Amino acid sequence: MNVLFIMADQLRWDHLGCSGHPHLRTPHLDALARRGVRFDRAFVTSGVCGPSRMSYYTGRYAVSHGATWNRVPLSVGEVTLGEMLRGAGLTLALTGKTHVMPDQAGLQRLQLDGASELGLLLRHGGFDEIDRYDGHSPPGRESRYPDYLRAHGYASADPWSDYVIAAEDRGRVVSGWHMRNVHLPSRVAEAHSETAYMTDVALDWIAVQGDAPWSLHLSYVKPHWPYVAPAPYHAMFRAADTGPIVRSPQDGTGAEHPVVAAYRTHDECVSFAREEVARHVRPAYMGLVAQVDAHVGRVVDALRAAGRFDDTMIVFTSDHGEFLGDRGLGEKELFYDEVVRVPMIVVDPDASADVTRGSSDARLVESIDLVPTFLDALGIDAPTHCDGRSLRPLLRGEAPSAWRDDVLCELDYGFRRARLALGRAPSQCRGFMLRTAEWKYVHWEGFRPQLFDVERDPAELADLGADPSFDTIRHAMRERLMDKLATLRHRVTLDDAVIAAHTDTHRARGIHIGIY
Amino acid sequence: MNVLFIMADQLRWDHLGCSGHPHLRTPHLDALARRGVRFDRAFVTSGVCGPSRMSYYTGRYAVSHGATWNRVPLSVGEVTLGEMLRGAGLTLALTGKTHVMPDQAGLQRLQLDGASELGLLLRHGGFDEIDRYDGHSPPGRESRYPDYLRAHGYASADPWSDYVIAAEDRGRVVSGWHMRNVHLPSRVAEAHSETAYMTDVALDWIAVQGDAPWSLHLSYVKPHWPYVAPAPYHAMFRAADTGPIVRSPQDGTGAEHPVVAAYRTHDECVSFAREEVARHVRPAYMGLVAQVDAHVGRVVDALRAAGRFDDTMIVFTSDHGEFLGDRGLGEKELFYDEVVRVPMIVVDPDASADVTRGSSDARLVESIDLVPTFLDALGIDAPTHCDGRSLRPLLRGEAPSAWRDDVLCELDYGFRRARLALGRAPSQCRGFMLRTAEWKYVHWEGFRPQLFDVERDPAELADLGADPSFDTIRHAMRERLMDKLATLRHRVTLDDAVIAAHTDTHRARGIHIGIY
Repeated sequence: MNVLFIMADQLRWDHLGCSGHPHLRTPHLDALARRGVRFDRAFVTSGVCGPSRMSYYTGRYAVSHGATWNRVPLSVGEVTLGEMLRGAGLTLALTGKTHVMPDQAGLQRLQLDGASELGLLLRHGGFDEIDRYDGHSPPGRESRYPDYLRAHGYASADPWSDYVIAAEDRGRVVSGWHMRNVHLPSRVAEAHSETAYMTDVALDWIAVQGDAPWSLHLSYVKPHWPYVAPAPYHAMFRAADTGPIVRSPQDGTGAEHPVVAAYRTHDECVSFAREEVARHVRPAYMGLVAQVDAHVGRVVDALRAAGRFDDTMIVFTSDHGEFLGDRGLGEKELFYDEVVRVPMIVVDPDASADVTRGSSDARLVESIDLVPTFLDALGIDAPTHCDGRSLRPLLRGEAPSAWRDDVLCELDYGFRRARLALGRAPSQCRGFMLRTAEWKYVHWEGFRPQLFDVERDPAELADLGADPSFDTIRHAMRERLMDKLATLRHRVTLDDAVIAAHTDTHRARGIHIGIY
Repeated sequence: MNVLFIMADQLRWDHLGCSGHPHLRTPHLDALARRGVRFDRAFVTSGVCGPSRMSYYTGRYAVSHGATWNRVPLSVGEVTLGEMLRGAGLTLALTGKTHVMPDQAGLQRLQLDGASELGLLLRHGGFDEIDRYDGHSPPGRESRYPDYLRAHGYASADPWSDYVIAAEDRGRVVSGWHMRNVHLPSRVAEAHSETAYMTDVALDWIAVQGDAPWSLHLSYVKPHWPYVAPAPYHAMFRAADTGPIVRSPQDGTGAEHPVVAAYRTHDECVSFAREEVARHVRPAYMGLVAQVDAHVGRVVDALRAAGRFDDTMIVFTSDHGEFLGDRGLGEKELFYDEVVRVPMIVVDPDASADVTRGSSDARLVESIDLVPTFLDALGIDAPTHCDGRSLRPLLRGEAPSAWRDDVLCELDYGFRRARLALGRAPSQCRGFMLRTAEWKYVHWEGFRPQLFDVERDPAELADLGADPSFDTIRHAMRERLMDKLATLRHRVTLDDAVIAAHTDTHRARGIHIGIY
């Protein structure tokens, strides 16, 4: 069994054809969904790249792995999927983005900051980096993309800034950092764009593997900003195709939650609060999604041609979503479904999964379930301190007892302007969301909670967090969150099986406690 | 400034003269208390050696460091006091017990399982082991005690079992593992006993340091079981000196908490439930305490003689207490004050602490405060992910704003017979205690809480955890516990200062998010 773990960056759950977008067509992803299971209520552990990805790579909640925001390194003490595979003699290759920040202090402490193979592995979050490139600044030495671009005629010391995220406006080169320019095509040809390049690298690497089994994380940097799409994707959609923009009567009023209000001071929210900005950016975003879809189609075609489609588990997901102007907000973070709910398509080629092919599953699943799922598919035991659970029983059509009935998500806004706006210390900027099928409850340190009736108000228009008639619900949800936090896996150095085998065995070890 | 961190093992907070024991005299510890501050409400993070000590050594709650019970290794990812000192060019020496379990899997993962200096340091919990010996089984190669004993005429392959914890009963050698024998004197002379030996090793080591600054953890293995005391301490106290035995009307009835009831199946509780056992063991325990007191006196005398008494911070504490038959329970664990409240005497030689000398302080302090206290005394910044706070402001007579008003304690009984008695999985055996000046609330996974009014019922005779008239209190305490768990320091790889310095700075790094 091979594993192909495809991730899009900042792709909203509802921006796929198969999840019901009114205008965006994603035929290749829809075809994957028809071949596997589309998990319709899949959630990430944090609505921002770093902590979310570290959960995808460790199988643990952000509160467990500790990398609570983009710039917080994953502790060298945390074990990633790549390492777990290595323990079984396998490797996990990477093309694209991981957002792994090396734990330099931890590596230095453990004298692993040199050029050893282990040091490199840890610095790369357990990945065997074929070509790494995180997408939010010019590619570094970990990527051959700049050389590739130059070889294809994009002459520049920084072809990413000058071509990939640049456009031409009446003869003048303009930057895609400025969202006013994203209706223009990128200065690179589609075949040389980021999404195409990463796909090429992945397919070349897969081809080289021949018949040997492999695991690959193909991690696109799109549709994340800068939102510049290459032709023809830049013009595939119009403002009229961008669907409704969600607004709540509470938006921007005194009834709004203080943390949400503080986020409105961020540049991206100031911009996206203007409907014309949202209508201007959404078509480019949709074009970038359509482009990812097309390249996923290339990958599937190549696997079929190589005869590997039937022995490869394929997962397609995203690290989080994006507001795109909904609620007058931009970008990500906070706990609305636009951000914390993601696409999740799982194709298990095993015959045992035939019974669920083409179905959608509304059970609550989390990003942390993928590590146990991959390990399960590869016949490797997951460490018991993984917070997630294998999805394979669900793929087999089973109804595992006590499948989870809530999901946990976390935010640390210590690095954000909102912290300054609220006058809080870096350690006092935490929120936890617990979401069931019916309710979404958000605990904010130092502020009132938020509460949404996600069953009757799926657009989360009414924050009931201060409404006295929902005291009982808030109390019950807070109790659940307390239970969740109190039962997280804090013990990481021993598996449950060891404890089970050594319960009440001190006498056998010559320790005779309490014998009179 | 030198640091002398003295720990007794399993010493109850109330078994000192200065804390009011009616019969036990501890003149040397009392003298230390007169020279420093006696913290009268000091609590450990778990009522069992391993997790409690790992908190003493990391400055972090058990829920943070993850070594939740005796046999759970401290993750190699956790940084201990010894390492923190090493970062400042100092070392932390050890004579005696640490209960550090090496994280073999973690060391192997990081290729530190060889004989490197770093590997050794991590295997030893950051200590420079002068002579390590944990006291609950025969000393291993980390201690010279067996050779020392043989050199002093105790001829045996295992002189600890045959002499130190053995006694002679009418010509027959009997073991101190059997508590019926603990009225008899140990087969070693007092001068060769564990407490004397550890003191000798410490004093020899201190003498060798000369005028160089040093930090030493002098960690006695007594009055922990086996309770055998050498003459004359074995006979210093009688049953009549052992004070009242606390019994609650709820003990052993259906009104008792299920986890407490399950603990009654443990051998030590079966034994200590018999009053004659408690009355038989307590005198030996008291003798062992008196012996520790005498040897602390030797240490003080030696420091005075060497002229180091006035430049050494001295702390005396214990890793937890012991029931000694109170409530019909034996040994430790659970959350009663007999177990989780400890002696804590802090002597700071600095003139700034003169204002508090000889006082007792009733503010809530925790074992995790010692790491920041030592670092503070040595002029080293504590990492922000330490959960504790330096006690030095309190020693200077200050009233720091927002000093803590609750303490957190934890238990993982997954290894214990109680787990089997209750039919629970290893991961479902957790309890958390939150104690304020007025209330002690215990959250048990899967069971009702416990609640004690520790102000009006300091002996914790009435468990109000199921009493409907205390719903409001329980609710408020549960809310506090929730807030505590939600604000623990999960982020360990970045200090708050780094976040403060890099808040809202992405534009300066060339990342122009959300600009139209």
